[in-house]
Amino acid sequence: MSIRTEIHKQNIVKIFNPKSIAVVGTNNVKGTVPYDILFNILKTEFTGIVFPVSPGEKSICSVKAYKYVVDINDAVDLAIIVFPNTVCHMALEQCGQKGIKGVVIISAGFKEVGEKGLEREKQLKQIAEKYDMSIIGPNCLGIINTDPNINLNASFARKMTEQGSIGFLSQSGALCTAVLDYALAKHIGFSKFISFGNKVDISEIDLIYYLMEDDKTKVILLYLEEVTDGRALMKAARDVTSLSGKPVLLLKAGRTEAGASAAASHTGSLAGNDEIYDAAFKQAGIIRCDNIEEMFNIAIAFAYQPAPRSNKVAIITNAGGPGVLTTDAAIHDGLQLAKFSEETTREFRKCLPANANIKNPVDVVGDAHADRYNIALNGAFREDDVDAVFVILTPQSMTDIETIAKEVVKVSKQYLKPVYASFMGEADVAAGVDILLRNKIPHYILPESMCRSFSRVYRFYRDIDINPHPQRIYTDVDTKTVHSILNEAIKNNHLYLPEDEAVSILKIYGFPVVSSKLATSPDEAALVALNIGFPVVMKIMSDDIIHKSDAKGVVLNINSVEEARNTYSAIIEQVLQIMPEARIKGMQVSEMILSGEEVILGIKRDPSFGPIVMFGLGGVYVEVFKDISLRVAPIDEIIADSMIKQIRSYKILQGIRGKAPRDIAAIRECLIRLSQLALDCPQIKELDINPLIVLEETKGCYVTDARILLNTSTVQ
Amino acid sequence: MSIRTEIHKQNIVKIFNPKSIAVVGTNNVKGTVPYDILFNILKTEFTGIVFPVSPGEKSICSVKAYKYVVDINDAVDLAIIVFPNTVCHMALEQCGQKGIKGVVIISAGFKEVGEKGLEREKQLKQIAEKYDMSIIGPNCLGIINTDPNINLNASFARKMTEQGSIGFLSQSGALCTAVLDYALAKHIGFSKFISFGNKVDISEIDLIYYLMEDDKTKVILLYLEEVTDGRALMKAARDVTSLSGKPVLLLKAGRTEAGASAAASHTGSLAGNDEIYDAAFKQAGIIRCDNIEEMFNIAIAFAYQPAPRSNKVAIITNAGGPGVLTTDAAIHDGLQLAKFSEETTREFRKCLPANANIKNPVDVVGDAHADRYNIALNGAFREDDVDAVFVILTPQSMTDIETIAKEVVKVSKQYLKPVYASFMGEADVAAGVDILLRNKIPHYILPESMCRSFSRVYRFYRDIDINPHPQRIYTDVDTKTVHSILNEAIKNNHLYLPEDEAVSILKIYGFPVVSSKLATSPDEAALVALNIGFPVVMKIMSDDIIHKSDAKGVVLNINSVEEARNTYSAIIEQVLQIMPEARIKGMQVSEMILSGEEVILGIKRDPSFGPIVMFGLGGVYVEVFKDISLRVAPIDEIIADSMIKQIRSYKILQGIRGKAPRDIAAIRECLIRLSQLALDCPQIKELDINPLIVLEETKGCYVTDARILLNTSTVQ
Repeated sequence: MSIRTEIHKQNIVKIFNPKSIAVVGTNNVKGTVPYDILFNILKTEFTGIVFPVSPGEKSICSVKAYKYVVDINDAVDLAIIVFPNTVCHMALEQCGQKGIKGVVIISAGFKEVGEKGLEREKQLKQIAEKYDMSIIGPNCLGIINTDPNINLNASFARKMTEQGSIGFLSQSGALCTAVLDYALAKHIGFSKFISFGNKVDISEIDLIYYLMEDDKTKVILLYLEEVTDGRALMKAARDVTSLSGKPVLLLKAGRTEAGASAAASHTGSLAGNDEIYDAAFKQAGIIRCDNIEEMFNIAIAFAYQPAPRSNKVAIITNAGGPGVLTTDAAIHDGLQLAKFSEETTREFRKCLPANANIKNPVDVVGDAHADRYNIALNGAFREDDVDAVFVILTPQSMTDIETIAKEVVKVSKQYLKPVYASFMGEADVAAGVDILLRNKIPHYILPESMCRSFSRVYRFYRDIDINPHPQRIYTDVDTKTVHSILNEAIKNNHLYLPEDEAVSILKIYGFPVVSSKLATSPDEAALVALNIGFPVVMKIMSDDIIHKSDAKGVVLNINSVEEARNTYSAIIEQVLQIMPEARIKGMQVSEMILSGEEVILGIKRDPSFGPIVMFGLGGVYVEVFKDISLRVAPIDEIIADSMIKQIRSYKILQGIRGKAPRDIAAIRECLIRLSQLALDCPQIKELDINPLIVLEETKGCYVTDARILLNTSTVQ
Repeated sequence: MSIRTEIHKQNIVKIFNPKSIAVVGTNNVKGTVPYDILFNILKTEFTGIVFPVSPGEKSICSVKAYKYVVDINDAVDLAIIVFPNTVCHMALEQCGQKGIKGVVIISAGFKEVGEKGLEREKQLKQIAEKYDMSIIGPNCLGIINTDPNINLNASFARKMTEQGSIGFLSQSGALCTAVLDYALAKHIGFSKFISFGNKVDISEIDLIYYLMEDDKTKVILLYLEEVTDGRALMKAARDVTSLSGKPVLLLKAGRTEAGASAAASHTGSLAGNDEIYDAAFKQAGIIRCDNIEEMFNIAIAFAYQPAPRSNKVAIITNAGGPGVLTTDAAIHDGLQLAKFSEETTREFRKCLPANANIKNPVDVVGDAHADRYNIALNGAFREDDVDAVFVILTPQSMTDIETIAKEVVKVSKQYLKPVYASFMGEADVAAGVDILLRNKIPHYILPESMCRSFSRVYRFYRDIDINPHPQRIYTDVDTKTVHSILNEAIKNNHLYLPEDEAVSILKIYGFPVVSSKLATSPDEAALVALNIGFPVVMKIMSDDIIHKSDAKGVVLNINSVEEARNTYSAIIEQVLQIMPEARIKGMQVSEMILSGEEVILGIKRDPSFGPIVMFGLGGVYVEVFKDISLRVAPIDEIIADSMIKQIRSYKILQGIRGKAPRDIAAIRECLIRLSQLALDCPQIKELDINPLIVLEETKGCYVTDARILLNTSTVQ
């Protein structure tokens, strides 16, 4: 842990649990941010003491004001700075002198407005480091802590949030205002609500760790526009999940190029490849959401209800159509409809009317009152095969909505299984929905959203992996030699590594490589071919030719000494017709692997996630179907396996149409070795093994071609 | 048009525009359906006269009651029957005697409860036919007509809907209650609201045509659990779109098998293959929705705003983050961000603050009041490159939400371009949202839903096809001969047609077929092969062997007379080892087509949509990627083209990795011929051409193998 991280860890606790606060730069102009911040702190009945600091005022909101923060005699735990951006640094300097360790800077006009703002931001950072202070912001809405021992609304939000167990972190302040409004109407409560803005000092990573240890927080929500350090984010999410079992939900803006460029123009941030984000988040166990509604739909499911033991649900409805829609949605989202035992069926037959549907989905029919819901609910909860109950209601003319809502609350409290509800409609069901939400029954206007949310919760607990599997490190590799090959090539201003060298690097890293040898004359080629054994492949070797096939520099399936000799001359002739200037070293003569399946393995580097490992089937599968899987290195056997199984064309590797299955274990080993190579050698910017030819099960695989793009700025 | 359809057409108009109504079976028990129906008619101030009919009451709701409907002296246009299901038929008989032509039967307990109910339903149908009456229902919520000249709420809905231009049709009555409640809260108005229940007589098809001609209806919404006649539904939707330009939106329950079985258990309906539904709906221009929220999101977009000229939008926001989310969603849904002219840019630079983002998405920043929205709105509407405007708002502390909503309404009225809004949040934005919705500005809580809805509207108008292209009919076919081959095979109790006959049927229907001939001895096989030219393919011919490859009955690439002779004997030996009982006719010797791309063409029959044409690339593309396209026959050139282009592997046909493009025109012709064959010959239950080998552009294609499964119940 870095020193700053350690300092932040201590200071953040003080920021959220201050005994005293200075609001620096406040004033008496109602309806402005500097005023609203102070007034919100007072209005929410903050349990500590607040000191207004304002150069020109005697008092603000009936509270005595100080000219400078250093004028305050008492100790101050937290400063909220609301001065114009041009003087923030001076206020911060005084906070440092005063010994204040925690600071929230609300003011805007920093990195997001360009070069000058960035300069101002750097200045803030320097001051913070000088005094061992920690800053949240600038350019943020502020922070909220609903803990009744603190009661802090140090934000310019219109209203204080309800108390709850969701911790919310947002890079965008404006989005917070929409989220707060949305949450209030649905009685969604927060433990902490944190707008962290430009994250000049304290980052989302620091805050995630804080919420992990915060016992008031059960679920962590994060809205991000810019992933500054992807690896740190992944590690934080993994730590949170494995150490605390808390889920991390993420909404990441800037998915598309246009979105990313819009994000760049308003935060100065730079977005990477969204496919890599997707893969990395999944790998870290982060639940990525498509929009704020989905985020809160899932969040309340986690916050309000226990983890389900399985995906087997019972559906209870007073309307057939919606029962069908819910069933469709449940199956679509990978859930199962529980099967009722004879006992449950008998009970339902006895106690529900004849026209009710007593199978799952249970239809208590349109004229059902709360008593019928009671019977169906108790029956479903008691049933062994049921691990969650979905309650559907439509507002029919005889439906006593509020009584049924109360019944759902009452009955479900007696059981430990999760319950979810969808009272369909809006105005008439509103009072019933209110009862459900106040009593922490997750409610969804659409049964489809209910099923989807439950499914995400179920999958999170199913896939949660609290036992980190030790990473396998191959020791039969010679990193030093590989470094010297790469460094030498970079020194010689190569952009690409010559192919024979690329292949030999892979060989040094334990990859199976086809037998091959450089031949510099037709006769030598024939001799080499004879030694390797026919058929062979012949490929031109020239530093000037990257795409050998395009230059007609590759011939497959050479079957005799005579053919080998002729092919040598023929290739040279053809290549020189196309590229007369090419300097030719000779021909690489290689064993030809028959009847294997071609796969592609690769390394890329992402600006925020670092080395990425890629896998896919060769040829059209990659080109036409874009059927690839990505993971952030390092990868272990389980991750490598999941990469291989993720592609749609995996079935081909399993063997279709009577073909034998391919050697998956061999691919897995190559992927792990590749991941190791990627981490060991930052000189490799991109690497493609295309193809790796995979034989039948237990028979291995062979690298036959590889390309390495060098990272010319790196020499190790 | 059938006689019943013609009768319905006349009667439906009376059902929705009655001058007088009898409520048959009503009573004085408040809170029951028979009472509520009558009271709703009175409460809504129906413009005609209502007659309660109740055997045991003098008056109901202060209105004089009649013992029987025949006791009423005045003419009656519409009867609403609310008697228990066991006596409905008697009431209906009396309605017939009274000369009432339009009847809505609310009562439940018919087809949906099983055999007995189905019997009762058939009885109703017979009576209706006897008297030339038309029935809506049974088992429905009733009907609503908001036309102020009628004011009819003949339903047991809790509340009357607002007046509007959406026509809503639902098979489920209970779903209607949820929809009404949802719509009321959002000020969504309806022209007609029709719950048609078990559709014993009047079907959704009759009602779609009614709404097509109803000038109060601009958009038609349909909730269906059972598609009784898929072809009629397709035709109706196509007619609606081409004749009236009105969109048809559909929510179809029973997508999954479990959902379909749940639907079957509550309506007695049977669902087909959802992929076929999907293809058929698309082909008919029907907009399929995933849930009721999406359905209304799209419906209000159609109902409230003009058709967009293009997909170029301007986004106006007071918050950067939501601007990014909206941009992401827009691009994801196939929209484009309009580019502002220099004039617009200059205007924005002049009139918006320095920290505003004046490019698209326009960010008027957090402290924006209505005046800034005014500038941005006018600028965007005036900009030539903008064809729709999206307005985003987050409720920041200075945001005057209602004033901005009014500004959006006021400014957008001055332009003919569509405007959509997303005021994010819930409680604080509610009053503003209310202003928008009352003024027919489509509003969405999520910008993502806004983009998606606009995109569906845009695509509908883009793809609308009001000029039906004449269907090409090939006349170079001999249907008579094909019928006799098929009939003969059915008579001989064949399940599959022998392969050589299958191929010859295709030949008769103008498909290019490889040269081939049956050989019955090794010597004959050698001679045939010599005549055809090497290489050839040899295939065993036996009525007992369907899967020739599995029985080792196929050998490719035979290159000489000697090889042909030996192969003949070798195949027979191998086949007899596997299937000693097989009766062998001989060997089919065929030309071997080299270097073609294998595609698959097929026919299936769906219980509600009839013959379906299938297309895909052969081998793994179909098996692993399920990469196929489906259309309901008949198909024309445009549809055939869209089928070919729809598959993901289309790129392979276009030619990748230096390969020449394939002969798409030849595939297109085969698809149209196949569609014609499917319609001409109901004896064909399933047909697979696997493969059709497609050569390079202009070089044609060849059927090399075909399989026909016979419809043993059909002889033409």
